[in-house]
Amino acid sequence: MTTDIKQRIEAANLEAVKRMNAGDPVLVDVAPAGQVIPGLEDKMILHSGPPISWERMCGAQRGAMTGIALYEGWAQTPSEAIHLLQSGAITFEPNHAHQTVGPMAGTISATMPVWVVENRAFGNRAFCRQVEGRQQFGDYSDGALNGLRLWRDVWAPALRCVLQQGGELPLKPIIAKALQMGDELHNRCVSASSLFANAMAVRLSQAKIPHDALVGTLQYITNHELVFLGLSMAAGKSIADPARGIEYSTVVTAMARNGTDFGIRVSGLGEEWFTAPSPRVQGLYLPGFKEEDAGFDMGDSAITETVGWGGFVLAGATGILGFVGGTPEQAFAYSKEMRQITTTSSANYRMPVFGFEGSPLGIDVRKVVQTGILPIIDTAMAHKEPGHPIIGAGLVRPPLDCFKKALVRFGEQYA
Amino acid sequence: MTTDIKQRIEAANLEAVKRMNAGDPVLVDVAPAGQVIPGLEDKMILHSGPPISWERMCGAQRGAMTGIALYEGWAQTPSEAIHLLQSGAITFEPNHAHQTVGPMAGTISATMPVWVVENRAFGNRAFCRQVEGRQQFGDYSDGALNGLRLWRDVWAPALRCVLQQGGELPLKPIIAKALQMGDELHNRCVSASSLFANAMAVRLSQAKIPHDALVGTLQYITNHELVFLGLSMAAGKSIADPARGIEYSTVVTAMARNGTDFGIRVSGLGEEWFTAPSPRVQGLYLPGFKEEDAGFDMGDSAITETVGWGGFVLAGATGILGFVGGTPEQAFAYSKEMRQITTTSSANYRMPVFGFEGSPLGIDVRKVVQTGILPIIDTAMAHKEPGHPIIGAGLVRPPLDCFKKALVRFGEQYA
Repeated sequence: MTTDIKQRIEAANLEAVKRMNAGDPVLVDVAPAGQVIPGLEDKMILHSGPPISWERMCGAQRGAMTGIALYEGWAQTPSEAIHLLQSGAITFEPNHAHQTVGPMAGTISATMPVWVVENRAFGNRAFCRQVEGRQQFGDYSDGALNGLRLWRDVWAPALRCVLQQGGELPLKPIIAKALQMGDELHNRCVSASSLFANAMAVRLSQAKIPHDALVGTLQYITNHELVFLGLSMAAGKSIADPARGIEYSTVVTAMARNGTDFGIRVSGLGEEWFTAPSPRVQGLYLPGFKEEDAGFDMGDSAITETVGWGGFVLAGATGILGFVGGTPEQAFAYSKEMRQITTTSSANYRMPVFGFEGSPLGIDVRKVVQTGILPIIDTAMAHKEPGHPIIGAGLVRPPLDCFKKALVRFGEQYA
Repeated sequence: MTTDIKQRIEAANLEAVKRMNAGDPVLVDVAPAGQVIPGLEDKMILHSGPPISWERMCGAQRGAMTGIALYEGWAQTPSEAIHLLQSGAITFEPNHAHQTVGPMAGTISATMPVWVVENRAFGNRAFCRQVEGRQQFGDYSDGALNGLRLWRDVWAPALRCVLQQGGELPLKPIIAKALQMGDELHNRCVSASSLFANAMAVRLSQAKIPHDALVGTLQYITNHELVFLGLSMAAGKSIADPARGIEYSTVVTAMARNGTDFGIRVSGLGEEWFTAPSPRVQGLYLPGFKEEDAGFDMGDSAITETVGWGGFVLAGATGILGFVGGTPEQAFAYSKEMRQITTTSSANYRMPVFGFEGSPLGIDVRKVVQTGILPIIDTAMAHKEPGHPIIGAGLVRPPLDCFKKALVRFGEQYA
């Protein structure tokens, strides 16, 4: 590579992280997806990761799709739902093609309320669905769908009222604070969820909503330790999107998996996905499950690592190790290692355990390929067959091939 | 020392930490001190640390006493209050003589509502006053006293109703969880306070109390990052008290300072205080204040270190370093050092950053004197003159003389 191109890349990457550092995510609404997500139509289901057909979908992704068809009332039984989904009557599109992210299978349909986060620095919006532990993992039982219905009918409308009556909620202060309270904002959101619940509790108490909805929604948000994950994902997406499309930039703007393929997108390389087979997660299993049960890595939640949270700040969130496995020494090593493949340190999000150093920000495809160090990602595990809730959690690294393919394309485009 | 005595000491110390480990603190009430604290009478003010006369009180302690005289309506002006306090008409007694602890000056009078914590394993109760940043530091201005009045008239009665209607609140789960969320439960209670507010928010929404009190109390508890300190102190006192009075035990059951004297009590040595001059705190000052302004170390809050929290778990609470000063490496070293002067590890309270090892529990006077390693205590700083709010925070070590004096008395009593 010539010096000229190197300089252009450096400048472009600095611009990318400058935009990420300027990100100012604000929760502005909780609204039915069909009302707010651009291009989301009826009989369409958005999903996590790169584009994928029904034929290539993993078991958990098919189970989640089945759940959505039942939830939307497009089918009355699982077999009816599967028939419909196979028929071609339902369109499948990636969340990332719609300014959106979703946890695990990431399935979103029109009537499902989503968090609406606006990046005030750039005016762009991002969306994420509710995080729960069942349907998004492929469980389509009535119990699993009931959580979606309560979200749609009770909790989300109450939160929407509260935001409309009490005003929007800035997320940057909550995220910055939670990173100093042992969260990494991906698998561990317990502090952010608690801070969010407290902020909403005061607004709920002041809002004009039925008393039952007030109590029920308070119970939901004060007892859901991952309620904030949907917000940190939407915030991450809103922060990453303005860094897209910068010519010559080798900074990663998305990492996402559909359970079959792992894909990344790179700022200077447009909307193209660079994919490789989704890897197996290393971690701990919930009682009753073992390694042979697990599907491959899945979900858009690696948007949190893309903006420097999650596995990148694991050293500050050692409370998570009882859930994902590993030692504090490994957690410290991971967070230090991530400095070698990133462009800068966050100006906003600091790690007390490293003397308030900013979190590692802006994964550089070149550095990943040069060092062979792959991003470390916190994640959860779904069953390889449809019909199960969460079965475990752990850590995963993307395939190196995603980064190599991106670098090859970069060479073709710019060299 | 003979082998026989050594074995008796070891057995007694194991009994002391066994009792501490069994401690099960539950918040049962928030009630006016005069209704619940044994022996607290009208025209009496309880204070932090060992017993002290008006003549020997430091400036902040005198300021806080002045504030109480005004708050109780015993005097109408500061000079009237000081005249009254000097006159001998008001009795001063240590909190620790009344199953009670208090932050900084620790001043408690009959109409002041206190947290009532019961240790379910032993049936004993402990009490602590509200934590705020002004009157307890010696500020007796009307603004400072207004916080006490709101606590007395609005917040405490609302919390009392909520506990009476919604049932008691177990504190052990909150404390255990907060220690995995970056708290050390002394200077940094941000996570515990947030979890406490979450728990009370639901109860408040369900309680039959006026809407204004509901909203006001929710605003108070969701915005007070040290609201839990009064609860962790009362919990600590309730855990430490059953470990008192065990023959031959060299385990410390209280560390407390009145701003003039630092005192410790030892399980096998009854109610005697072993005192030495209170030391200067090393730390960071709030804008406008400097080292020459500071009084000496003050408060009963070292009860948190006595039961293994606070400075003893600083390694898990590096978020505090921006407030008290120091580096993560020092924090790690402190927590490791405390293993050398303690009897065991906590069975309940674990540190993720050390692979979920229990916190260091049961300070052994012998080990302190043998190693010269003094307990490390997180603390706040008051002004040396009356009339100021908090001026800073930092770390402090007790005088070695307290421990030497205790060991001498132990020799006299048991050798």
